[in-house]
Amino acid sequence: MEVSFDGTDFNGWQSQPHENTVQQTIERRLSGLFAGADVKIQGSGRTDAGVHAIAMGVTFSTPSEPLVPEGRIAKALNKMLPNSVKVANLREVPDEFHARFSARGKAYAYVVNRDRPSPFLARYAWDWPPCRDLAAIRRASRFLEGTHDFSAFATKMKDVENPVRTIHRVEACESDDLLLLTFVGDGFLYKMVRGMVGVLVKIGSGRLQPERVAELLELKNRGEGEQTAPAHGLFLMKVFYDDDSMSDFSLKTPPFHVS
Amino acid sequence: MEVSFDGTDFNGWQSQPHENTVQQTIERRLSGLFAGADVKIQGSGRTDAGVHAIAMGVTFSTPSEPLVPEGRIAKALNKMLPNSVKVANLREVPDEFHARFSARGKAYAYVVNRDRPSPFLARYAWDWPPCRDLAAIRRASRFLEGTHDFSAFATKMKDVENPVRTIHRVEACESDDLLLLTFVGDGFLYKMVRGMVGVLVKIGSGRLQPERVAELLELKNRGEGEQTAPAHGLFLMKVFYDDDSMSDFSLKTPPFHVS
Repeated sequence: MEVSFDGTDFNGWQSQPHENTVQQTIERRLSGLFAGADVKIQGSGRTDAGVHAIAMGVTFSTPSEPLVPEGRIAKALNKMLPNSVKVANLREVPDEFHARFSARGKAYAYVVNRDRPSPFLARYAWDWPPCRDLAAIRRASRFLEGTHDFSAFATKMKDVENPVRTIHRVEACESDDLLLLTFVGDGFLYKMVRGMVGVLVKIGSGRLQPERVAELLELKNRGEGEQTAPAHGLFLMKVFYDDDSMSDFSLKTPPFHVS
Repeated sequence: MEVSFDGTDFNGWQSQPHENTVQQTIERRLSGLFAGADVKIQGSGRTDAGVHAIAMGVTFSTPSEPLVPEGRIAKALNKMLPNSVKVANLREVPDEFHARFSARGKAYAYVVNRDRPSPFLARYAWDWPPCRDLAAIRRASRFLEGTHDFSAFATKMKDVENPVRTIHRVEACESDDLLLLTFVGDGFLYKMVRGMVGVLVKIGSGRLQPERVAELLELKNRGEGEQTAPAHGLFLMKVFYDDDSMSDFSLKTPPFHVS
């Protein structure tokens, strides 16, 4: 199924003792539909506290026959879930299909607000008024595309992880005073999208040159003054289980309006 | 000044003991800018719990010289205010100008979501999927425009109030799967906009005929089965202190995107 959530009031995706996470919120309701049997769900990845999702791929194995017909599980779940989490497109998949391991890529969007702060954007956009130079951001984006060691943009979790990833497309577009940044890639390191956004907004504000991106890729290390954009502007838009659809992905309106 | 707020977590506008209201939230910070002196603000009207505002007109009298230069009061206030409340366009006005008594009219917007429930719309739109007949809603809207006794659409607060109001314009437009209803009038009775929306969505869903609006205006009383739309879809868009601008008001995109 696909899960959509407003991450503001959650401590991220993954279940943790004594924390309010999206995974636990769903598992608890799902167990109810299987007479209280333990149901574990697999997400396509972990999202940090405050990050939102428009469509996270999620799989689970049914422990028994559900209490409602299969066609009505999504509707029953949505009735029980809080407003901040909704599921859609629930369907049976082959046993070998796994939300995380079957994923071929992901699309993320990041929203930057250049207008004055608004109560209606505070949960979904990063206020960065001077970020106006779309051409510079687009030039910088070209350096990010391709297969690179993205160490300079990520936050190191463990030494062993391979830091090479392939980014298929980085797009920047404007919707009124919002700047929408989209990243489509085969995978992303820990806090890597937010690290790229941190550099791109500085470039868009004239505080760094677009070529700084090429330098950082070369450097393979976080430079001085690099910043990680805050979680609340980030949206997991889509998980690709099929290579073809990845090259078509595009976003022209704010992600919280896509459904 | 103009005040914008997300009403979700407030108990409405007006100060009340032991309640979290927008008025109190602003007054407390404003007092801080006048060395703790008591500052009372006047809003253009009261909004109910859950109702949002894009631009509520607000006036206050300064008890003394502010601690920051006048030109920086708004910025200082916004720094202290929670994300859910922001002020703009703060300026000096003549002594006789009063946010409520000087108002010539108001514009409200109401958002209806016809798509599946979304975590990103749950705070700002009323889910009403079958409300698809825009032509019927527009026919019904014509009956509402003009000077009428609107008792059938309001919730009675006190017997003495004159129930006659003039509505200059009711507009319905679509933005993707959102239906945007706009009401511009010289004033509105208690819960009157939400009462009109309650009838209009039934008309848009084919459950009532557009002519039902004319009947209700004639009836001057709430009929059987009338409903009041919930607070969370309602936005106070603008307060008019000048007749001219009222006829120009128009809304083509969701109100939470206007700034």
